Amino acid sequence: MRKLRALVFDAYGTLFDVHSVARLCDELWPGRGAALSQLWRTKQIEYTWLCSLMRRYRDFSQVTEDALGYACAALGLPLDDARRARLLSAYRELALFPDARDALAALKASKIRLAILSNGSPAMLRPLVEHAGLGGLIGTVLSVHSRKTYKPAPTVYRLAIEKLGVPRNAIGFVSSNGWDACGAKSFGFHTFWINRAGAPVDALGAAPDHVIRRLDELPGLIRVPVS
Amino acid sequence: MRKLRALVFDAYGTLFDVHSVARLCDELWPGRGAALSQLWRTKQIEYTWLCSLMRRYRDFSQVTEDALGYACAALGLPLDDARRARLLSAYRELALFPDARDALAALKASKIRLAILSNGSPAMLRPLVEHAGLGGLIGTVLSVHSRKTYKPAPTVYRLAIEKLGVPRNAIGFVSSNGWDACGAKSFGFHTFWINRAGAPVDALGAAPDHVIRRLDELPGLIRVPVS
Repeated sequence: MRKLRALVFDAYGTLFDVHSVARLCDELWPGRGAALSQLWRTKQIEYTWLCSLMRRYRDFSQVTEDALGYACAALGLPLDDARRARLLSAYRELALFPDARDALAALKASKIRLAILSNGSPAMLRPLVEHAGLGGLIGTVLSVHSRKTYKPAPTVYRLAIEKLGVPRNAIGFVSSNGWDACGAKSFGFHTFWINRAGAPVDALGAAPDHVIRRLDELPGLIRVPVS
Repeated sequence: MRKLRALVFDAYGTLFDVHSVARLCDELWPGRGAALSQLWRTKQIEYTWLCSLMRRYRDFSQVTEDALGYACAALGLPLDDARRARLLSAYRELALFPDARDALAALKASKIRLAILSNGSPAMLRPLVEHAGLGGLIGTVLSVHSRKTYKPAPTVYRLAIEKLGVPRNAIGFVSSNGWDACGAKSFGFHTFWINRAGAPVDALGAAPDHVIRRLDELPGLIRVPVS
C-alpha cells in the first residue's frame, strides 16, 4: 500500500452507530423500533442525494428531521413534538461503535493524522464528537455544509485535501457506507470499506481498495511514513 | 388549475410496470421473483442518483445491468449470461399499466400534447414504446441521455421546455415516483403524483400539486385550452 499521511473517517454509520436510536424508538413505539430506525436512516440518506441533485441543499439536521417525519408517517406511528424532540436529541448522542475508540487510539499512536468528513452540519457534529469524547483523537472535523451539497459529490471529498493540506493520493478514506467508499474511490482516495453486514460491493464503476469487517482491522493495514 | 399545453410522463413505474419482470424473475428463481424485482429496482434508482452525484454518468442500460448484478449477489441468486440476457431483454418489453392506454387516448383526444421524459437511454426507450404500441399516442420521447445526468437534476426537466417549446408553467408532469414528482415541482412544473401505493409525500421541500391513485383519473383533472 502507498504511504498514507491522513486517514479521513465518515461519521454516521462508520464511527457512530445510527441505529443506537432504535432503543428509544422502541421505547416510544414498542415493537417498532428497529423498523423505524431502518426506514429513518434509509430516507435520511435518500434525501441527501435527492436534495443535492435538485440543487436544494437543506442541512443535515433538517434532512434528519424530514426523514423521521416520513418514516413515522409511512409506518403509521404518531409523531408529536415531544417525541420528535427526544429522537432528534438522541441523534446528537449516538453511540460509538464498540471497536471505534481503540482503533482510533492505535492509529493516532502511529502518528497518522485523523479527521472526520461528514454529511452532518457543524452544529450536529460538535455535540456528537464531544459526547463520545473523541476530541483528543480526531484532530479535524469537516462538514459538507460549506459546500451546500452532500456525498458522493466530488467537491465534498475535495474539502479534505484543502483543509488537511495533504495530497489526494496520501489520503485514506474510511466508510461503512458502501456508496461513500465508492464515491471516495472515484474521487481518488485510497479507500477502506467497513463492510459490517457482508454486503456485495456496489457496482458504481469504482470499487473500494480494501473491504474489511471491523474498524479494529484498520491499524494493521495502515503503513505510516517514518517521520 | 392553470391551462396546460403539454403533459410530460415519466416512463418506468409510471406508464410501464417495472415489476412486470417479476414473473420472469420467479421463473428463473422460484419463490424469489418479487424480492429480486424490488431490490433490482431499488438499486437501479439509487445508482442513477449516485453516479449523477459522482459525476460519472453511465447510461440507463448499464445502470440497469449493474443493479441486477448487485441484487442477485445480495440475494444469493446465481446470475449467468443467459439469465442476464433474458432479464435485460424483458426490461425492453415491460408491460404498460392497465389504465395507461385509455388515459393517454382520452388525453390525446383533448388535444393536449403528450410526451415522455425518462431516465432511459434512447436505445432502451425505443423498443419499449414500440412494443407497447404508444407511437400514435405519445408525440415526443425525451431521454436524460443528452444531459449525462439523471432525474431529479433540474437540467433534465429543462429538456422538456426546450424540446417541446412550451413554457415551464404550461407543462404538467406526471410520475408515480414520488421523488420525481417532487423534483419536477421543485423545477417549476405543475405536477401529478400517481401514488399507487398510498405512500406519504416525500419531505423534499416541494410537494406535488395533485396526488392521485391511478392514471385514468388524469383526464378529468386536466383542463385543455380551447384552440
